[in-house]
Amino acid sequence: MKLKFKSIKGSIVAPQGFLASGVFCDIKRLGTGKGSNKGPKRDLALIVSEVPAAVAGMFTTNQVCAAPVKVCVERVNHGVAHAVVVNSGNANACTGRQGMKDAREMTAVLAKQLHMPEQHVLVGSTGRIGVTMPMANVKRGILAAAQLLGNAPAQADEAAEAIMTSDSKQKQVAIEFKLGGKTVRIGGICKGAGMIQPGMSATGARPAALPHGGLHATMLGFITTDAAIEAKALQAALREAVAHSFNRITVDGDMSTNDTVLVLANGLAGNAECGVRSAEFRLFQAALTHVCLELAKMIVRDGEGVHRVVTVRVNGAKTIQDADAAARAVANSALVKTSWHGGDPNWGRIIDAIGYSPATVVEDKIDIGYSAPGGKQILWSLKRGQPTKATFKQLCLAVAPKEFELHINLNLGKAAAVMYAADLTEAYVDYNKGDVTDPTTLGG
Amino acid sequence: MKLKFKSIKGSIVAPQGFLASGVFCDIKRLGTGKGSNKGPKRDLALIVSEVPAAVAGMFTTNQVCAAPVKVCVERVNHGVAHAVVVNSGNANACTGRQGMKDAREMTAVLAKQLHMPEQHVLVGSTGRIGVTMPMANVKRGILAAAQLLGNAPAQADEAAEAIMTSDSKQKQVAIEFKLGGKTVRIGGICKGAGMIQPGMSATGARPAALPHGGLHATMLGFITTDAAIEAKALQAALREAVAHSFNRITVDGDMSTNDTVLVLANGLAGNAECGVRSAEFRLFQAALTHVCLELAKMIVRDGEGVHRVVTVRVNGAKTIQDADAAARAVANSALVKTSWHGGDPNWGRIIDAIGYSPATVVEDKIDIGYSAPGGKQILWSLKRGQPTKATFKQLCLAVAPKEFELHINLNLGKAAAVMYAADLTEAYVDYNKGDVTDPTTLGG
Repeated sequence: MKLKFKSIKGSIVAPQGFLASGVFCDIKRLGTGKGSNKGPKRDLALIVSEVPAAVAGMFTTNQVCAAPVKVCVERVNHGVAHAVVVNSGNANACTGRQGMKDAREMTAVLAKQLHMPEQHVLVGSTGRIGVTMPMANVKRGILAAAQLLGNAPAQADEAAEAIMTSDSKQKQVAIEFKLGGKTVRIGGICKGAGMIQPGMSATGARPAALPHGGLHATMLGFITTDAAIEAKALQAALREAVAHSFNRITVDGDMSTNDTVLVLANGLAGNAECGVRSAEFRLFQAALTHVCLELAKMIVRDGEGVHRVVTVRVNGAKTIQDADAAARAVANSALVKTSWHGGDPNWGRIIDAIGYSPATVVEDKIDIGYSAPGGKQILWSLKRGQPTKATFKQLCLAVAPKEFELHINLNLGKAAAVMYAADLTEAYVDYNKGDVTDPTTLGG
Repeated sequence: MKLKFKSIKGSIVAPQGFLASGVFCDIKRLGTGKGSNKGPKRDLALIVSEVPAAVAGMFTTNQVCAAPVKVCVERVNHGVAHAVVVNSGNANACTGRQGMKDAREMTAVLAKQLHMPEQHVLVGSTGRIGVTMPMANVKRGILAAAQLLGNAPAQADEAAEAIMTSDSKQKQVAIEFKLGGKTVRIGGICKGAGMIQPGMSATGARPAALPHGGLHATMLGFITTDAAIEAKALQAALREAVAHSFNRITVDGDMSTNDTVLVLANGLAGNAECGVRSAEFRLFQAALTHVCLELAKMIVRDGEGVHRVVTVRVNGAKTIQDADAAARAVANSALVKTSWHGGDPNWGRIIDAIGYSPATVVEDKIDIGYSAPGGKQILWSLKRGQPTKATFKQLCLAVAPKEFELHINLNLGKAAAVMYAADLTEAYVDYNKGDVTDPTTLGG
């Protein structure tokens, strides 16, 4: 179902009945709470619904999983949420019992301030691994942010800023569409620039059979909607939306301990409540997928050191698992990614990665080509394992733009998969080699 | 079995009855055959036994597999070889029927010149993918090299140089030991700097169950010995040796289309022929493993852009597959590798990679520490998932040397695995982003 949705402003506060805020409370303990030499970037956000909302979530399948993720998995299961507190600067991961206590206390402080049950408050964290939360600063931040809650686009901006870590820009989207005769809105913010190859599930548990190529970001995504939808239907819609968006991106192939996507649906649009079998469900699901995909692509475009973004489309695989494995092998190959950075249409590295992927492939059946984003016109570099007559100059032009699509046809079956991938640059290496003069980088 | 073996000079010509040579025949078609602006590096090597030898081989499990590999898999199966011709500059991969014809013709030309059956000549190639071999140059090179065969160390040097691609130095080793009362020698040369994470099998076929973490160099290794050993025993010894050496290294996680290790045993040492059940077999196997491991480590140390070499040791896994998966996840994590480059003892990225690996792990059982190469004294950074009292300065000192060991204990069982890994540097990216002004890089 390909549908056009109308873009609107305000991201998470665009839907009726949602409030947001973002403050600086010095979670990195850089200075006095009034800012630092690294700049007074906001580091704590609140997202609050005026009424209790249906909730759904998807969480990292990393076995090393942060305390806030554990708290959310437990609470989302009950289907109702009222508010979310999110911090950057500290992931509250590998922090043991103290970490769990701190994550719960964050929700308790907000719940008390807003007069709602603690169980209806969710929590997300991103930043350093292995350092306990500076709870005095965090509590001060929550109380300050609660005073600043509002539904102006500027407040959504502040929340979007507060969840950023190595992100260079805020990531926000909102759309409006008709659902059951009513105008419904979905808005979202997200963050993520490194440690990005999410593989999220509804419970954080890994699937019994790991997909070929493994699972591999901290990415955080927070979505709000005023649609009325049952919690179970909301979870089904989110699972499908994430499968086609956040779980299909890779910056560096590393899956984080903290990946989280939450969606709150407060029903204030006044449509008849959607169930999984309702006529409106597929439309809602398409709209949610659209929002998630827009957000997911922003993460790849703003990935650490990223210069080029490549959509890797594998078609003609025997199975979806094979299509996925081939796409991930290409999307995560250091040699393929450096060639993208160089604007080099090197098909040898691509077919090499396809060949070592767990997918079943046959060398002399493989096609490799390029198009513009969304383009139908494919310039084939390789057909049935053999170079075409496309010239080196033509191929260089095809891979020169900041964004292009790589088309791979295995010609063995009908299964397909797509990955939204990034190149590998000197800037990525430089950024991530760390600053050994700064012990605050020790954990993550 | 930990044994000390005496190092000697001469690598592949150290064992009795082996001859070598290396010439420049302009396989990249850079100029006139007399050299070029890129320097007249040798690009074709011969290794010849004075008598027919037992042979064993291990080959890439990449499904996209070069013509010379296919020819070797077929011929090694017969257990006898007499000579090997190897070229650099062109991988003869993805070259279709012409590639197979060319690979066979290379062996036929040498066989005719040396008066031996074509079936007893093997072939190896490394370099660009997808370009047919410049057979006129190659034939001229084979004939020239055949005239220059000799058993002086300088001739082994020439062969070792001729198989290099992005390697910065020759890689050679030879040892001498007593086997059944006779003095026996094993010598070897190898190459490989990028596209390095070999996963070789005896037939090039993939194992029925792919190991966790997948299989993922062009690396070429050529080993000679004057030991008398049955071909089947030689294959068994090589399989074990490769499993503990070449198949345990990674530079960039990419497995090549051309990975090949060949060993020729001509029996001229005069020992009683070893079978798998002979008393001498385990000693021979230990010696061959020693040679392969020395060569494999040279590949990592000379890897493209490599600044630091890290031995990743995983202990306490439930299964060997789990130990291997955890070690490979850490050894191939872009974030871990960049932190090694920066001399940053970041355990957050390490535990993150362990957590997303397919291995079964429990966060609060994981230990992470460092030692000097071969060191018994481990400085623990993390114990049972929690930071130790080791200071940031102490940890920085532990990861500052050019080579160190990373110790991971999962504390869940008794299985162990090791990976010899490299850091990820700006120099790697710069080297591999390619030169789009040079269409000769198109394939590989």
